[in-house]
Amino acid sequence: MSIVVVGSVAFDDVASPSGSVKGILGGAATYFSLAASYFTQVRVVAVVGEDFGAEHEDVLKKRGVDTRGIERSAGKTFRWGGSYAENLNEAKTTFTDLNVFEKFQPRIPKEYEDTEFLFLANIQPTLQAEVRRKMNGVRLTGCDTMNYWITGARKELAETLKLVDVLLINDTETKMLADEKNLPRGARKVLAMGPKALVIKHGEYGATIFFREGAFGIGHHPFRAPTLPLDEVKDPTGAGDSFAGGFMGYLASQPELSREVLKRALFYGGVMGSFAVENFGTERLQSLTRDEIDERFQIFCELTHLE
Amino acid sequence: MSIVVVGSVAFDDVASPSGSVKGILGGAATYFSLAASYFTQVRVVAVVGEDFGAEHEDVLKKRGVDTRGIERSAGKTFRWGGSYAENLNEAKTTFTDLNVFEKFQPRIPKEYEDTEFLFLANIQPTLQAEVRRKMNGVRLTGCDTMNYWITGARKELAETLKLVDVLLINDTETKMLADEKNLPRGARKVLAMGPKALVIKHGEYGATIFFREGAFGIGHHPFRAPTLPLDEVKDPTGAGDSFAGGFMGYLASQPELSREVLKRALFYGGVMGSFAVENFGTERLQSLTRDEIDERFQIFCELTHLE
Repeated sequence: MSIVVVGSVAFDDVASPSGSVKGILGGAATYFSLAASYFTQVRVVAVVGEDFGAEHEDVLKKRGVDTRGIERSAGKTFRWGGSYAENLNEAKTTFTDLNVFEKFQPRIPKEYEDTEFLFLANIQPTLQAEVRRKMNGVRLTGCDTMNYWITGARKELAETLKLVDVLLINDTETKMLADEKNLPRGARKVLAMGPKALVIKHGEYGATIFFREGAFGIGHHPFRAPTLPLDEVKDPTGAGDSFAGGFMGYLASQPELSREVLKRALFYGGVMGSFAVENFGTERLQSLTRDEIDERFQIFCELTHLE
Repeated sequence: MSIVVVGSVAFDDVASPSGSVKGILGGAATYFSLAASYFTQVRVVAVVGEDFGAEHEDVLKKRGVDTRGIERSAGKTFRWGGSYAENLNEAKTTFTDLNVFEKFQPRIPKEYEDTEFLFLANIQPTLQAEVRRKMNGVRLTGCDTMNYWITGARKELAETLKLVDVLLINDTETKMLADEKNLPRGARKVLAMGPKALVIKHGEYGATIFFREGAFGIGHHPFRAPTLPLDEVKDPTGAGDSFAGGFMGYLASQPELSREVLKRALFYGGVMGSFAVENFGTERLQSLTRDEIDERFQIFCELTHLE
């Protein structure tokens, strides 16, 4: 099966305790596409400027990603700069030049319309909802958002949440969205807003999935996936989007969407996130093999499973 | 088998978003003893004042804890006051009256000397080392410490660490002790100081155990146990000591100390910690059944294990 991702393609400047890089390919849709490409056919919808060359597009094409939905616009591609101090969980944004991304109006190519899975990366909630409505036949929609929209576009976001199946956000975003400090209670409040499942990403501590009563099967309990304790996190940028790529990509590769499949997807999300941070930018995600991915999946199991 | 715990018995004032209590029975040795008592025979070494009555001792005795090592001293019992705001991971200490605990000189009763397991709760490192040396025949020693000793008695603590098998501390303490921000690298540095295994407690995100090469069997990977996402954490006080009680108590109940047994112990640690925080003080730990404990152990497995 296949998946459409709608989101940003960007050029990033990143500084971390491991070094610094300038103008490397980034953006949520890029990380997501590369991570998901190991599991399923990925189709990307994004906007780039005149500085986006064939060599950049080739990074995606080499992984078999369908780039027909990348629109070229007059001007420059979205640029972001961030630095990480010793706390690698939090980026300090040094600059954000939205450029052509500021007027992004996602256009779904005809050839994408029959796609079964959809991921709405972090863009303005009304645009997310519009895309979702256009992709009427999808089997499952995943969605990301951020504090900026939770506080600044709460009403619009509430409309979007009614249209998505799985929301993937972090602890802080969950507490803010639910206006609730307790995570399980917050999760229930978010699930009442629409999503059938909520994935809460805990950074270096993994992620937890909460299910709405009766969704994807029966059972009362949430499920938790680990991350890999790594000796060096070179660049945390894109970890969350790579997590989403592994999670959604794995779902799109499965014939059935049971709870057990969503749990395995949570592990694959962690696996892809753990690869992403091992090197700057998308470097590590460009040249993996499915064997390496499954080996790490096995390590994640050994990390958490009793005999 | 049986275990000796050396540490504080106290009266606590606690305020949290769920309410407040005054003068309730607390202290590391108390939480540890109650949690461990569901797995093994516990023998406690502590000091209390004249305000420690039979009704307080009965809390331990009712759980079969051997209290012959509790010394009564002229003066008042250790008193501590703390409050938790919305961030339940961190207590704000409102007062600390060490009272008789200030001059605590642990005395091991003759009847305790053949005990197989030892837990050194958070007391001055030189006292911990003295106790360890007196209990020469122990099979396994667990140890806790805190920032106060890591910064103020680093040399003494280094001597103690040479004598212990498992150190149980949190993320911040690990980074401080190892002078290293990366957790796996920090863990290796701590293991080089003496312990065969290091348990790092992550608060609401569970705990990870790192093994020294070749200790307790073979294998390269650490292991992670979850916590239970709870709808209400009434009082986080004693969660770490209850974790240690479940962990060490389970070890003391096992004929063999393999990696697999230590991994299961990590789960039981999480289980006992999750019970402890459900009510104020030691309330919840006083009246559990082994069935309730094993049911929750099962939930911890469902929370983390793929089929």
